[in-house]
Amino acid sequence: MAASEFELIYRYFASLGRGPGVRLGVGDDCALLRVPAGEDLATSMDTLVAGVHFPADAFPEDIGFRAVAVAASDLAAVGAQQLGMTLALTLPEADELWLKAFSEGVAAAVSAFDLPLVGGDMTRGPLAITVQVLGSVPEGRALLRSGAQVGDQLCVSGTLGDAAAALLVLEGLWTGSGESADYLEQRYYRPSARLGLGRLLRDGASAAIDISDGLLADAGHIAAASGVRLQIDPQQIPLSSALKSHPDREQALQWALTGGDDYELCFTLPAAAPVPPLCTRIGEVTAGEGVDCGLDLVQAGYRHFP
Amino acid sequence: MAASEFELIYRYFASLGRGPGVRLGVGDDCALLRVPAGEDLATSMDTLVAGVHFPADAFPEDIGFRAVAVAASDLAAVGAQQLGMTLALTLPEADELWLKAFSEGVAAAVSAFDLPLVGGDMTRGPLAITVQVLGSVPEGRALLRSGAQVGDQLCVSGTLGDAAAALLVLEGLWTGSGESADYLEQRYYRPSARLGLGRLLRDGASAAIDISDGLLADAGHIAAASGVRLQIDPQQIPLSSALKSHPDREQALQWALTGGDDYELCFTLPAAAPVPPLCTRIGEVTAGEGVDCGLDLVQAGYRHFP
Repeated sequence: MAASEFELIYRYFASLGRGPGVRLGVGDDCALLRVPAGEDLATSMDTLVAGVHFPADAFPEDIGFRAVAVAASDLAAVGAQQLGMTLALTLPEADELWLKAFSEGVAAAVSAFDLPLVGGDMTRGPLAITVQVLGSVPEGRALLRSGAQVGDQLCVSGTLGDAAAALLVLEGLWTGSGESADYLEQRYYRPSARLGLGRLLRDGASAAIDISDGLLADAGHIAAASGVRLQIDPQQIPLSSALKSHPDREQALQWALTGGDDYELCFTLPAAAPVPPLCTRIGEVTAGEGVDCGLDLVQAGYRHFP
Repeated sequence: MAASEFELIYRYFASLGRGPGVRLGVGDDCALLRVPAGEDLATSMDTLVAGVHFPADAFPEDIGFRAVAVAASDLAAVGAQQLGMTLALTLPEADELWLKAFSEGVAAAVSAFDLPLVGGDMTRGPLAITVQVLGSVPEGRALLRSGAQVGDQLCVSGTLGDAAAALLVLEGLWTGSGESADYLEQRYYRPSARLGLGRLLRDGASAAIDISDGLLADAGHIAAASGVRLQIDPQQIPLSSALKSHPDREQALQWALTGGDDYELCFTLPAAAPVPPLCTRIGEVTAGEGVDCGLDLVQAGYRHFP
């Protein structure tokens, strides 16, 4: 007899639900979480669909890790302390090998991001994963998109463009050196959700967003929400050694400006504030609207419905 | 130019996010909710896939309403006060007419269940909807599956089997009277999430669950979690007039025992406690394990992976 939904859920996911804020994890009608006194709940939801948000033949471990990281990145963007997450998995068939590998990727992310899995749903259908992350942030202290001030510095964490270049590698269109290719694939499948940085920025940044749709598109959300213009100096944009090894420097820069899936943070800081470690000043906040990088680019961010 | 994801989300969903617990709704990286002091967060996630959990050609208004009701029912089962919800919609194409109708169904559910829509995601892919509900419950007061005691009464709210019968109507296999058919379809597409009853039961019931997979299957979860046996008297199971109009009484009873999708509550009460209005005593809690209804039935609850 094939394993039932309940048995599968228990076998692979029930052990991932322990954490300091978890009163009750998987197994009842709701999970119960403790939100610290004086803090608000911060929550966000992301869906990844096979063939749209990741290659349909990706390793299930990678799919599992990435689905969690993508959602956790939204907690980082508002400076929240992570409490837990729920995961809805839609799967064409109850493939135990696939589920085992997928759950190992989820488990790696639970551990990497300290984000216990407290509930979810498992259904039959075309492969898709929805992750809801739950965190807490002191009342009135969440980092929003709307606080950028004229004169602020514009900064990003890490390096940009790696995930966009990785898609080329995954499609076999660019091999690069083996080392570079491996690095870029890791950047795509195992993004860092900058949770520690996000909490640090609560004490200094005026606005923040995570870069999921591309720098220009996401910076555009800060500009619109804050009623300011963001001036980006393309020469300051941090690129990884792997991306710099691409023969077409202009293409690499375009990925860094418009490619999605990097899951770094883009934020604004008062002019006098020190730029945090592993972050780079890439421009400034001026009066006006929109984002200007001094270049004429074709594509401003990935959109799901073209 | 076709509307972008952002425009679509704003146009149809951004106005549904107001509520007393909502600090920040749709439009930033996370939504922010206020959980009352001394209360825990209660949360649950449900996915509905086209062709699996609802007919692929269902009216989008009905799909939207039902997706919310199914998830809200889990808040009812633990006795939580609703705070808000997030919704992930995966849609094959940006069909504005479909989206408008869907959002009207969601809006009707937002209003019916007092459950503001505070965030979500919209992606391209095979039609599926995931709803995450968020509520609060005083610390240590959540209704769980695990508290049933030997000697307790076993009760259900409303009537059972209507949604299972509705599927026959929807497939054109039973017409019944027009009035009955309409009633059953409403029961399937517009389930009541028993939120008020759930909160009321916090003060008296020893265990509760919502009936999503069928009475026998869901009662089985109470029996397993509580370490008891549940004895059901099939003659006491409440059937609607519409269901009673089915010519095969035995079939109707089977739907009430094993059909899913009713989203009524099944709960246990101390022997001396009064049965709440519109609820029915259908049996009792005894020593042992499992669920016994004195009948030999083929199917014990819908399972997604047969």
